[in-house]
Amino acid sequence: MSETAVDYHPMWTSLGLNLENHDALLSILGRLYGDTFMTQKNRPEGMSYFDFVMSEVHGLRVKELMDAKAAGKKVVGTYCTFVPEELVLATGGIMVGLCAGADFATDEAEKLLPRNTCALIKSTFGFKLGGVCPYIEASDLIVGENTCDGKKKAYETLAGLVNEFYAMDMPQTKSPQGRALLKAEYLTFKEKMELLSGTVITVESLRKATAVVNNKRRAVQRLARLRAADPAPVSGLDALLINQVFFYDDPERFTGSVNAICDELEKSISDGTGVTPTGTPRILISGCPMAAPNWKVPATVEGLNAVIVGEESCIGERGSRGLTNTEAITVDGLIDHLVDRYMEIDCAIFTPNGDRLDHIKEMVNEYRADGVLLYGLNFCTPYLMEGLGIEKQLEASGIPALRIETDYSQEDTGQLTTRIEAFIERISG
Amino acid sequence: MSETAVDYHPMWTSLGLNLENHDALLSILGRLYGDTFMTQKNRPEGMSYFDFVMSEVHGLRVKELMDAKAAGKKVVGTYCTFVPEELVLATGGIMVGLCAGADFATDEAEKLLPRNTCALIKSTFGFKLGGVCPYIEASDLIVGENTCDGKKKAYETLAGLVNEFYAMDMPQTKSPQGRALLKAEYLTFKEKMELLSGTVITVESLRKATAVVNNKRRAVQRLARLRAADPAPVSGLDALLINQVFFYDDPERFTGSVNAICDELEKSISDGTGVTPTGTPRILISGCPMAAPNWKVPATVEGLNAVIVGEESCIGERGSRGLTNTEAITVDGLIDHLVDRYMEIDCAIFTPNGDRLDHIKEMVNEYRADGVLLYGLNFCTPYLMEGLGIEKQLEASGIPALRIETDYSQEDTGQLTTRIEAFIERISG
Repeated sequence: MSETAVDYHPMWTSLGLNLENHDALLSILGRLYGDTFMTQKNRPEGMSYFDFVMSEVHGLRVKELMDAKAAGKKVVGTYCTFVPEELVLATGGIMVGLCAGADFATDEAEKLLPRNTCALIKSTFGFKLGGVCPYIEASDLIVGENTCDGKKKAYETLAGLVNEFYAMDMPQTKSPQGRALLKAEYLTFKEKMELLSGTVITVESLRKATAVVNNKRRAVQRLARLRAADPAPVSGLDALLINQVFFYDDPERFTGSVNAICDELEKSISDGTGVTPTGTPRILISGCPMAAPNWKVPATVEGLNAVIVGEESCIGERGSRGLTNTEAITVDGLIDHLVDRYMEIDCAIFTPNGDRLDHIKEMVNEYRADGVLLYGLNFCTPYLMEGLGIEKQLEASGIPALRIETDYSQEDTGQLTTRIEAFIERISG
Repeated sequence: MSETAVDYHPMWTSLGLNLENHDALLSILGRLYGDTFMTQKNRPEGMSYFDFVMSEVHGLRVKELMDAKAAGKKVVGTYCTFVPEELVLATGGIMVGLCAGADFATDEAEKLLPRNTCALIKSTFGFKLGGVCPYIEASDLIVGENTCDGKKKAYETLAGLVNEFYAMDMPQTKSPQGRALLKAEYLTFKEKMELLSGTVITVESLRKATAVVNNKRRAVQRLARLRAADPAPVSGLDALLINQVFFYDDPERFTGSVNAICDELEKSISDGTGVTPTGTPRILISGCPMAAPNWKVPATVEGLNAVIVGEESCIGERGSRGLTNTEAITVDGLIDHLVDRYMEIDCAIFTPNGDRLDHIKEMVNEYRADGVLLYGLNFCTPYLMEGLGIEKQLEASGIPALRIETDYSQEDTGQLTTRIEAFIERISG
């Protein structure tokens, strides 16, 4: 997001971006990134890679996509952790998460969406309508999924705004019928990817792709475990950033970079050093996904001298937990393993979703969190409703919980700061 | 809801109602009913039956349920038109729609639900928590369904508040997998009803039950068609009331009463008489269901000298459209016909849901509506999102449309009246 030597304006023009809007956005984001990330103390050296990625997120990374497209590869844009990257990679394609973490062109978005729509969905529309998302423009296919009501119905409109849109159905329960539905959808998506790419998925290509994604997940799982240390070896902001880059970067390069920073963190743990003093209040964040550049709440928490030690979130451990078995001798068998792995995701769209509470408690225990901040986006019915019960059950188990409901605006930062400050005081007791 | 000779307080006590709350509710509802319905001019005589039903909706009708229970029958309470009454009737049971049309004990409800929850769901909780719904207390089984996010997740909490709760999964698309899911759910529900009642469903019992429900639907379909006449033979308020009673009354008695009023309306049509003058502006209402006693918007519309000629709604034609084929020689074959019929319901939970626009246009044409009032409950994402596109498409087809978003409070009646008045003026042009 910082200014770079290369001028990417011709590329952005060719993608049909609104250059005036886009320059304005990059300027704001560059400042926000500097203020949020570069002011942190004792940062691991390995974060310089992720700083670079973010500085080039609309530049070099998009150029890589364009080069890959020129070489015949397909780019698939997604909004959800249920879209299996394995099937995209197996056809030689590239999967990227799409921009949805900041308010942009909200007035335009509200012409197509009810005002009472969550910030994530409004942002999706705002970035498209404002002409500021190079990823959506670079995508050969946009994949939406029937997760929540808001996304399901909004995609009907989004489909008319993009070149090619693909809707993936989703189960609502973890019943045998639910699993069968997801398997049927993954088989259909496999065919779609084969048609799009002109490449037939084989046992070898799918097994290799699955291994690549497994390695990526293993790396962030390793990072997650290191955050159990006290003092914390990495800030929650930096760890969230890595989990956000998970959705944008080349998977193998990303895996290497995460493992490199993990090597560094292991050393600092064995040296007894960290980014905050020993005994800093430790918070687990749980709830709605935080898409880049949505850093508001973590920045508030860590600005108050607490440290975030885990994200129970789609962009975080809910999304990256688990690995896929690669032992099968048919493509269908490998897809069965994929379905098994993705059906384990305990998204609030499932009913019942009792495993999520268990996972939160496990994370509290493993990462030695002093309390849980239940993060909900305004109007996100699944997580807001589920959060009410989870708050009660955590408190009943002796785990302090704070439930907050917010959006991407800065209007409530004062109120949020007060509430989070009081919560930190409570858990520091 | 009026005072009756019989004192039902002992029955209400035995059901565990909060008598103080319940008396207060009945008093309010009695006045509301009088003001809304009994002040209408030129009402068909046949409405006296429905006035009686409503006056006894917490009295005699509940006593009938209690008598049936004493005789070994099971009462099943539901919240959605996707729960097949046929399978309940086939086991000798009684199905009733549950109270969800008025604000009650909202403060209590908001302890268990996010504030940004639709009025229908809040009302469900308020009636239960306030102890004022004899139907929920009389039910041997409460059936919820995974339609919208709000209901799906709220039912997880409601399940803990009632004796026996049953969750029915729902498809989100009309794909073969979606149909298979609904069929599997109906088969499971059949088994549940057999276990609950101790009665095995046979071809004969299911065919008879299906015929009973078909006859009920035929009767309200006949009523709907008669409303095509100008002058309108019945008010929209009275027709809505009949569609609400559809969910409470004994089905065969209801069918007879609807057919009796249809006979009367046919005569008034052939006499050229009606409830409003010829040329009265005619409005089709489309959108969220209006559960009794939610009469706010129809009362506003008809208080402004327009007439409602149809309800494209779950409580209305969306819910009662279509009949079920009874020609099959196995229970499985009959259930296939049931699934076929219910899969035709064009609820906004489905994506895509293009048939709904076609149906609205057909209804506009058949009932000679001058415009469509798109009715949305605040925070009802599926209908609010779908309504935005439908409004545009109706207007593009030359059909005036007004999109309103409201709840059960009276706070916005001034603003609603102003907007509806302007709309009526527009379509009267």
